[in-house]
Amino acid sequence: MVNVLKQALATKLDVDLMSAKCGFALEQLMELAGFSVAQAISKVYSFETNPSILLCVGPGNNGGDGLVAARHLYHFGYKPTLYYPKQPDKNHYQNLLKQCQNLGIELHSDFKKALGSSDLVVDALFGFGFKPPIREPFFEVLSALSKSNKPIISVDVPSGWDVDNGPLSTNCIRPEMLVSLSIPKPCSSFFSGKYHYLGGRFIPEFLAKEYNLDIPKYPGSDQCVLI
Amino acid sequence: MVNVLKQALATKLDVDLMSAKCGFALEQLMELAGFSVAQAISKVYSFETNPSILLCVGPGNNGGDGLVAARHLYHFGYKPTLYYPKQPDKNHYQNLLKQCQNLGIELHSDFKKALGSSDLVVDALFGFGFKPPIREPFFEVLSALSKSNKPIISVDVPSGWDVDNGPLSTNCIRPEMLVSLSIPKPCSSFFSGKYHYLGGRFIPEFLAKEYNLDIPKYPGSDQCVLI
Repeated sequence: MVNVLKQALATKLDVDLMSAKCGFALEQLMELAGFSVAQAISKVYSFETNPSILLCVGPGNNGGDGLVAARHLYHFGYKPTLYYPKQPDKNHYQNLLKQCQNLGIELHSDFKKALGSSDLVVDALFGFGFKPPIREPFFEVLSALSKSNKPIISVDVPSGWDVDNGPLSTNCIRPEMLVSLSIPKPCSSFFSGKYHYLGGRFIPEFLAKEYNLDIPKYPGSDQCVLI
Repeated sequence: MVNVLKQALATKLDVDLMSAKCGFALEQLMELAGFSVAQAISKVYSFETNPSILLCVGPGNNGGDGLVAARHLYHFGYKPTLYYPKQPDKNHYQNLLKQCQNLGIELHSDFKKALGSSDLVVDALFGFGFKPPIREPFFEVLSALSKSNKPIISVDVPSGWDVDNGPLSTNCIRPEMLVSLSIPKPCSSFFSGKYHYLGGRFIPEFLAKEYNLDIPKYPGSDQCVLI
């Protein structure tokens, strides 16, 4: 039994989930993943003391999870805002952004100003598919985040870290909280922040067996669990 | 401000949610609605005392919510089973069924036998789009449910009830629990069971204003609220 899944196998698991074998739609999985991130945040940081959450949204699925989390955080009572410099054309991402904007969630163009006015930062830039190098504007964003003292919550993988091998340099971001999705990635063993949660409660048992995964037990109807 | 929405307006609201104006995908809304049903059930009935839940699944979106709820109930620790006599060809419904079957959730062919071995029954047959008459096999199913003493949980609308005017006869089912979705329908004023929950926490404020809706406040990250 394994409690982490390397990049290559995590990619395969994701393909399996959305194949005819499992039949999940991206829209379903992203909704559940993003919701689990928002719920985990709500268990650690109160919206009364930390209302302003800046979500840094990348161009792929990790970013999509961030957009979903932003919407749920808004409904929970937070004041989320977005930094989303590279917006893909894909219909679902455009729709997820629209859903945020319909709630009045602000879309920043100036990252440093956005960072300055936030209580918390969600790093939803790169996920388990990340391969270096980090291109602009993300290099500058991660550089600013690594120097900031704002608490960072990373979605699945701390952005800029190698998925299997962890931080690539001493300048990497050091999140205070990590929400692994489905199953932690190997880099999570280098996580030294305060709160490590697992979200994405949707792996069917037969698939967990196929991948020999040791998935922690979630309490009640919670979509996240402290690990 | 209104706290119920008639059939015609509920239908319009649903169209609006999935239009370019709001940009929600059916897969997203159904996932959130079905999850809220499962969560509400978990707040009322423990899986330790009521493990066996028979979900009666209709051919439309109310049935889709039921399939999603079944999957989440399984993950919460219940032993859900399905009665799904009219399965539409639509891809997403087939996928939702597949997701249940991949968890080993049994699909019954004999309704009465299924009912006999269940602790609770979820009525996910007809929702806010229901128009009489009730055709077979649903007439017989509702007739058996109305005579049964098993607690019934209705999704959005007690099946067989007129959405705007309530029970059509004294033989109608009398659910113990009702989980209204988005906003209760007028028939909910005739609900005399023990637990009335609201789920479907996704209506944007601008749309609530447009429809003049008085939506109750949800606690924390909960996707359902007792009303």
